[in-house]
Amino acid sequence: MELGFAKLDLSRRERTGFDETVFCSGKTKEQLLQIFSAFQKNSCNALGTRCSWEQYEFVRNAMPEVHYDTTSKILSLRNRKPQALAGKIAICCAGTADFPIAEEAATVAEFQGATVEKFFDIGVAGLHRLLSKIEQIRRANVIIAIAGMEGALAGILAGLVQAPVIAVPTSVGYGASLQGIVPLLSMINSCAEGISVVNIDNGFGAAIQACRILKQIAHH
Amino acid sequence: MELGFAKLDLSRRERTGFDETVFCSGKTKEQLLQIFSAFQKNSCNALGTRCSWEQYEFVRNAMPEVHYDTTSKILSLRNRKPQALAGKIAICCAGTADFPIAEEAATVAEFQGATVEKFFDIGVAGLHRLLSKIEQIRRANVIIAIAGMEGALAGILAGLVQAPVIAVPTSVGYGASLQGIVPLLSMINSCAEGISVVNIDNGFGAAIQACRILKQIAHH
Amino acid sequence: MELGFAKLDLSRRERTGFDETVFCSGKTKEQLLQIFSAFQKNSCNALGTRCSWEQYEFVRNAMPEVHYDTTSKILSLRNRKPQALAGKIAICCAGTADFPIAEEAATVAEFQGATVEKFFDIGVAGLHRLLSKIEQIRRANVIIAIAGMEGALAGILAGLVQAPVIAVPTSVGYGASLQGIVPLLSMINSCAEGISVVNIDNGFGAAIQACRILKQIAHH
Amino acid sequence: MELGFAKLDLSRRERTGFDETVFCSGKTKEQLLQIFSAFQKNSCNALGTRCSWEQYEFVRNAMPEVHYDTTSKILSLRNRKPQALAGKIAICCAGTADFPIAEEAATVAEFQGATVEKFFDIGVAGLHRLLSKIEQIRRANVIIAIAGMEGALAGILAGLVQAPVIAVPTSVGYGASLQGIVPLLSMINSCAEGISVVNIDNGFGAAIQACRILKQIAHH
Amino acid sequence: MELGFAKLDLSRRERTGFDETVFCSGKTKEQLLQIFSAFQKNSCNALGTRCSWEQYEFVRNAMPEVHYDTTSKILSLRNRKPQALAGKIAICCAGTADFPIAEEAATVAEFQGATVEKFFDIGVAGLHRLLSKIEQIRRANVIIAIAGMEGALAGILAGLVQAPVIAVPTSVGYGASLQGIVPLLSMINSCAEGISVVNIDNGFGAAIQACRILKQIAHH
Amino acid sequence: MELGFAKLDLSRRERTGFDETVFCSGKTKEQLLQIFSAFQKNSCNALGTRCSWEQYEFVRNAMPEVHYDTTSKILSLRNRKPQALAGKIAICCAGTADFPIAEEAATVAEFQGATVEKFFDIGVAGLHRLLSKIEQIRRANVIIAIAGMEGALAGILAGLVQAPVIAVPTSVGYGASLQGIVPLLSMINSCAEGISVVNIDNGFGAAIQACRILKQIAHH
Amino acid sequence: MELGFAKLDLSRRERTGFDETVFCSGKTKEQLLQIFSAFQKNSCNALGTRCSWEQYEFVRNAMPEVHYDTTSKILSLRNRKPQALAGKIAICCAGTADFPIAEEAATVAEFQGATVEKFFDIGVAGLHRLLSKIEQIRRANVIIAIAGMEGALAGILAGLVQAPVIAVPTSVGYGASLQGIVPLLSMINSCAEGISVVNIDNGFGAAIQACRILKQIAHH
Amino acid sequence: MELGFAKLDLSRRERTGFDETVFCSGKTKEQLLQIFSAFQKNSCNALGTRCSWEQYEFVRNAMPEVHYDTTSKILSLRNRKPQALAGKIAICCAGTADFPIAEEAATVAEFQGATVEKFFDIGVAGLHRLLSKIEQIRRANVIIAIAGMEGALAGILAGLVQAPVIAVPTSVGYGASLQGIVPLLSMINSCAEGISVVNIDNGFGAAIQACRILKQIAHH
Repeated sequence: MELGFAKLDLSRRERTGFDETVFCSGKTKEQLLQIFSAFQKNSCNALGTRCSWEQYEFVRNAMPEVHYDTTSKILSLRNRKPQALAGKIAICCAGTADFPIAEEAATVAEFQGATVEKFFDIGVAGLHRLLSKIEQIRRANVIIAIAGMEGALAGILAGLVQAPVIAVPTSVGYGASLQGIVPLLSMINSCAEGISVVNIDNGFGAAIQACRILKQIAHH
Repeated sequence: MELGFAKLDLSRRERTGFDETVFCSGKTKEQLLQIFSAFQKNSCNALGTRCSWEQYEFVRNAMPEVHYDTTSKILSLRNRKPQALAGKIAICCAGTADFPIAEEAATVAEFQGATVEKFFDIGVAGLHRLLSKIEQIRRANVIIAIAGMEGALAGILAGLVQAPVIAVPTSVGYGASLQGIVPLLSMINSCAEGISVVNIDNGFGAAIQACRILKQIAHH
Repeated sequence: MELGFAKLDLSRRERTGFDETVFCSGKTKEQLLQIFSAFQKNSCNALGTRCSWEQYEFVRNAMPEVHYDTTSKILSLRNRKPQALAGKIAICCAGTADFPIAEEAATVAEFQGATVEKFFDIGVAGLHRLLSKIEQIRRANVIIAIAGMEGALAGILAGLVQAPVIAVPTSVGYGASLQGIVPLLSMINSCAEGISVVNIDNGFGAAIQACRILKQIAHH
Repeated sequence: MELGFAKLDLSRRERTGFDETVFCSGKTKEQLLQIFSAFQKNSCNALGTRCSWEQYEFVRNAMPEVHYDTTSKILSLRNRKPQALAGKIAICCAGTADFPIAEEAATVAEFQGATVEKFFDIGVAGLHRLLSKIEQIRRANVIIAIAGMEGALAGILAGLVQAPVIAVPTSVGYGASLQGIVPLLSMINSCAEGISVVNIDNGFGAAIQACRILKQIAHH
Repeated sequence: MELGFAKLDLSRRERTGFDETVFCSGKTKEQLLQIFSAFQKNSCNALGTRCSWEQYEFVRNAMPEVHYDTTSKILSLRNRKPQALAGKIAICCAGTADFPIAEEAATVAEFQGATVEKFFDIGVAGLHRLLSKIEQIRRANVIIAIAGMEGALAGILAGLVQAPVIAVPTSVGYGASLQGIVPLLSMINSCAEGISVVNIDNGFGAAIQACRILKQIAHH
Repeated sequence: MELGFAKLDLSRRERTGFDETVFCSGKTKEQLLQIFSAFQKNSCNALGTRCSWEQYEFVRNAMPEVHYDTTSKILSLRNRKPQALAGKIAICCAGTADFPIAEEAATVAEFQGATVEKFFDIGVAGLHRLLSKIEQIRRANVIIAIAGMEGALAGILAGLVQAPVIAVPTSVGYGASLQGIVPLLSMINSCAEGISVVNIDNGFGAAIQACRILKQIAHH
Repeated sequence: MELGFAKLDLSRRERTGFDETVFCSGKTKEQLLQIFSAFQKNSCNALGTRCSWEQYEFVRNAMPEVHYDTTSKILSLRNRKPQALAGKIAICCAGTADFPIAEEAATVAEFQGATVEKFFDIGVAGLHRLLSKIEQIRRANVIIAIAGMEGALAGILAGLVQAPVIAVPTSVGYGASLQGIVPLLSMINSCAEGISVVNIDNGFGAAIQACRILKQIAHH
Repeated sequence: MELGFAKLDLSRRERTGFDETVFCSGKTKEQLLQIFSAFQKNSCNALGTRCSWEQYEFVRNAMPEVHYDTTSKILSLRNRKPQALAGKIAICCAGTADFPIAEEAATVAEFQGATVEKFFDIGVAGLHRLLSKIEQIRRANVIIAIAGMEGALAGILAGLVQAPVIAVPTSVGYGASLQGIVPLLSMINSCAEGISVVNIDNGFGAAIQACRILKQIAHH
């Protein structure tokens, strides 16, 4: 669908199995409203990530049916209930500062129909915290591992479970973390197998990848 | 199991679902033989990646039951047939020079019991080649996308299918490809969703991640 | 022409075929007014890129004949109609957030006398959008391909057309896009032939290069 | 055309206006022979870049009709005379060490039917060399500027001519040239307009881009 | 001299020939005042670089004898006239945006007793501007060449003169200039001889180095 | 002591507590022999790191009293027994390929009089290996943690012990490990406290730092 | 202890010998208050680094027993006196701008019971300042060397003393210091032995490492 | 003078005061001979840097009047005695491995008529070595400071002398020295004033810059 500045990809659900998600940052609030209105007119579900409070307020004034979550900064519009996905996603996060990215992942996955279990603040500096949860984590079909700084959580987890681990480096940290480049490369270099990595702070991408995996359970 | 220079992780299968794989490069041929002998004594299956011809010859002289593949540089020892995994992996590769990495992925996945279908030389500079195969690719449960240079294949595929895409950047190319760093970061930055990335030239890692995903189909 | 802090290059049109363009960011508003006044006194056409609203207001108060475009942030002064260039430029842009750079390219090219056709939001995550426009794009003599994130649009286009493709990486994106360095290097490494690349967010530079190419049609 | 390890893109000439070029490095000599034999069977012209002497000898033994140039390392097969392109390309090169890249560009361009004029060793450390040739260079329709180290040649030329300049950074140099990354970024950052850049040492890519531009002259 | 947070190096003039210069950014305004008061009590000359307007105002209120220049952001205290240095420094600068760095260099050099001649806005995109001044520039004993973007000015100058060239890369520019890293490395890689380079935007350092050179004229 | 090409620092023991160590790589074998002869004449102990077999053979032919270790590539000359240091160093190493660096550390520390305990192949991909040794490791006064790839071993250890951890990143690995830069930065960014880091592959430096720490036990 | 968004590691003192320290930046002020309240309820000592004034004010209003230091930005809660550590730490800092990091190190070390001696503004540009203090510095059991720009202080010190040197690079400086990456790598590459390095601006980490070393004196 | 592959810059002496120097690496031995023959025919002095033994032998067979130095790898042809330059250059070098670069600088400077004094192996890890020579070094008019690893020598020297310091980073070192990038950036960031930097391993460039400075003494 043609909006002038954007072509809405209303057929994406057929092609890739999920509705289009709007990356809100970098769009004007007028553009955002136009996009969500179009989805509304087509009775689509829609998700907006990295949505600022100002963008949300502007859209909500015209479309009170949208919902906003301040931690994950996700704007959502739900016109139909998603089909429940088989299996379960464990979302594991290393530190308190990784919380917003973990919430982004959780919100997106649940929006797409997934069952999510959260394991927060289980970073490797206090290994007993992770080890005390490992049996529960092992029951998930996909694990999302979110960590900044040296990003060791993903590799440790992948060595302890059988499910695929989707690693999300975060820009949390300071000094030589290079805004997340170091945990990104650290995760990419993990000596453990069973890890694949998405972009820095990309809780959204990890959630969609996890849902694609869950879909295979039913799909097969 | 303790070899002095190495501790063989004979329980890894229980913990992570796969036997330990030996990264041959950087080990002496004597160490390699000791490791494979130990696996043989424990009737384990074992896989060695990045195995040179010299290493292979040295091991084979003492253990004629090993097998070697010159393209993928994989040394293998098979003491029992792997349990067949449900579903199918599509291995897609952009150019002829990415061939060895694609073969590494295929060999590893098949060794672990997966069904593999190969789609080689479907790089995006001649888009019709990819488009002519897309219906077949869509039938897979996981897609491994292997590409060097600008690494665009992964994103294009992820936008056309519903299955998860595991992207493998390769060090193929010259000039500013930075030995694979550019396709790695390019794949990490893909605007398409449903991609997660493993290390440069890491066909092995992509195969194991794909097999972990296939295992969820049965596991659930 | 000597302004103390700057020497205006009034002979550039003779040497390079285009008037000097002023890069406004980093100049004080007083300097900018002096520069545009000098062009006005010499009855030259002049273009200012990256012009802030504050700079524009200051100049307009003294020189109401300037024109400003808020999307492309271009300040322009037109004292004579440009000579129409032969041929046509197709400006293709991947996402909504690349819009301002695309508008910068379009405004500059039209200012220099070029005919421009715009193809916006045809990023490769939804390939059908690009493919549905490809016949129209093929009719252009030069193609400007603007994209951030993994920057795949340029390579895909270059593989589908005969005209030269000028690629513009954008700083749109987040995480590991490194403010546009990743799409820049990705475009530079494209496996497709017929691409050459300008600086990040440099819609201006792409437009001038495209116009230089169009001039050859007539020039020959 | 399907060779197992490769799909020959025999329709590329229709789509992009040029035959497929084979990047020889990274291919086995057997693969190279298979590819050139296939082109020969289809009476195509074919070009192989970065071809080693060993690869050449192996192919020539089976196919004496191929031609090889030791400086540019280009292997060529000519089954029909190319259509002469309108206009002229000036190939300018900064230092003696850039010579092989300049020859690669010249050989490729002439193979595609272009008229080429060479201006070698006109680096900016001895500016009079460049200035003494500038009138001749100005007569070309496209300029290819090849330079390593600080890569200043491209920007200087672009400020002195009206034609588009295609800049080729080279990996010539030592110390902090970062194997050509510095001249690449330096050319990308040029304050002169009318430059676009191809990959490091990519004489081939510059030649094809220049030929695409020349084709517009006739095409229009 | 001990101030608690700082040890003033009152003997530096004896050791290195110049008074200590204070790098103001990163110091509190109270610290700055304490430092300048100490210099005043010792009847020293003192120079503060990168001094903000707020810092200046705070110091001036207590010490009206300081002087401030808004373009170069230099705070100065002069208790005795510097000894005039032999010879002359030419300060050459590529673009209007490099102006503040050029002024920093000029102010520092003149403060130390040097004779300075300024050649501003002679960037290489309009080579005639530089060439028209070259005879004058050749008369200097040291040349400071200030440029951002691709930083070509330094190399061009060094190829045209006999005096040593001190190159100052600037953070002017955008896109892939990496805040001045590209012109820095470009200048370091210059194919011309007779260039040495100081830090990005370090007009101060270039001026002191130039003055050290001038001192040799007399010193010998 | 003056050798022409080198000044031997025979007083280093007094100043820093250890004899000078010779970094052999980059020296000619003649220079190496001269250096060891001088130490011999002064009845000093001496250590040479990164010594090639060729260098060793050349020195040994003239000085049969030197000793060489092929794994750690250390050449040593012992004229007096070192004073035993109080306490104990635990040397922990992640993978088989890190073995030579671990041996370099162990050999150097023992040469200086330290008691060393080795814990090899306890990388985090098989966490049980590390956990089964942790009580023994806790008894050491300093821990040297050696790891390549993502370098997680150092942070895990530091979170489990009270002693200082000296981390040694190794260049082991491939793809995006950047020859050890990634584990280096990963260790520097560790969220665990009680880690400090030495250069890539610098087993020598870690050993000396550990010995300096042990000396404080007695020194106090 | 479970706070929902965080798990407080109340057993860390037993495992690693020090209480958990809270990295305040990136936490909301409500989270910070909850954390400090929990420590207070458990009668623990607690330290918060990088605490903003706003965070401090919010916590203090509810918990007047916290203490805040504006230079080091450390928030502290002391419920019991730390056990005095044997030995002494020398904290050496190169320039005035490194002051806050030096204060962070001093405050943390003293909080943990260490005796600290400060040597500030002894950067290597005025070597006599450092040399005049070297006898005093030599009496310490651990030396913390804090420096930005080229970070030479750490290497110079390590060559002059027998105690271990913990180097802290700082983000002080401008131009090509890359926010502290250059002094970090410079310190890592020091030709002097007896240096190990912590993260950029990580005064806290250096202090804990120094205290771990002091503990060995008593521990042994 | 036109050689086909090269234009000899026989007028460089007039323009820049020195004969052209040939960078031998990257040239064929036939090209090198042609170049030196041309200089010989014009009775010029000529210098070739980075000349391999093979290149030398080839040239010498045809031109026995050339001279070669194996340490500095300089090929020279002297047809007339250089005019002696006023003043003196001190060449200071940190370690034995920096020796060849120091010899390159010394040979080049002496070839151009300069008086050179060498101070080798005075690296900062043993500061007394440097301090014992400082009075002699202070007598020079220019100082060339050559160092790898952390490159601290240049800054230390610049803080102790009045003459300009030309810093030469070397690629000596290992691990994170990044082939000399770290000492390069470290020298660029020096907190000492009076330093300017040339390319990694560029002894030649430092010598020419030093000679340009010496020429000002006489020139004035």
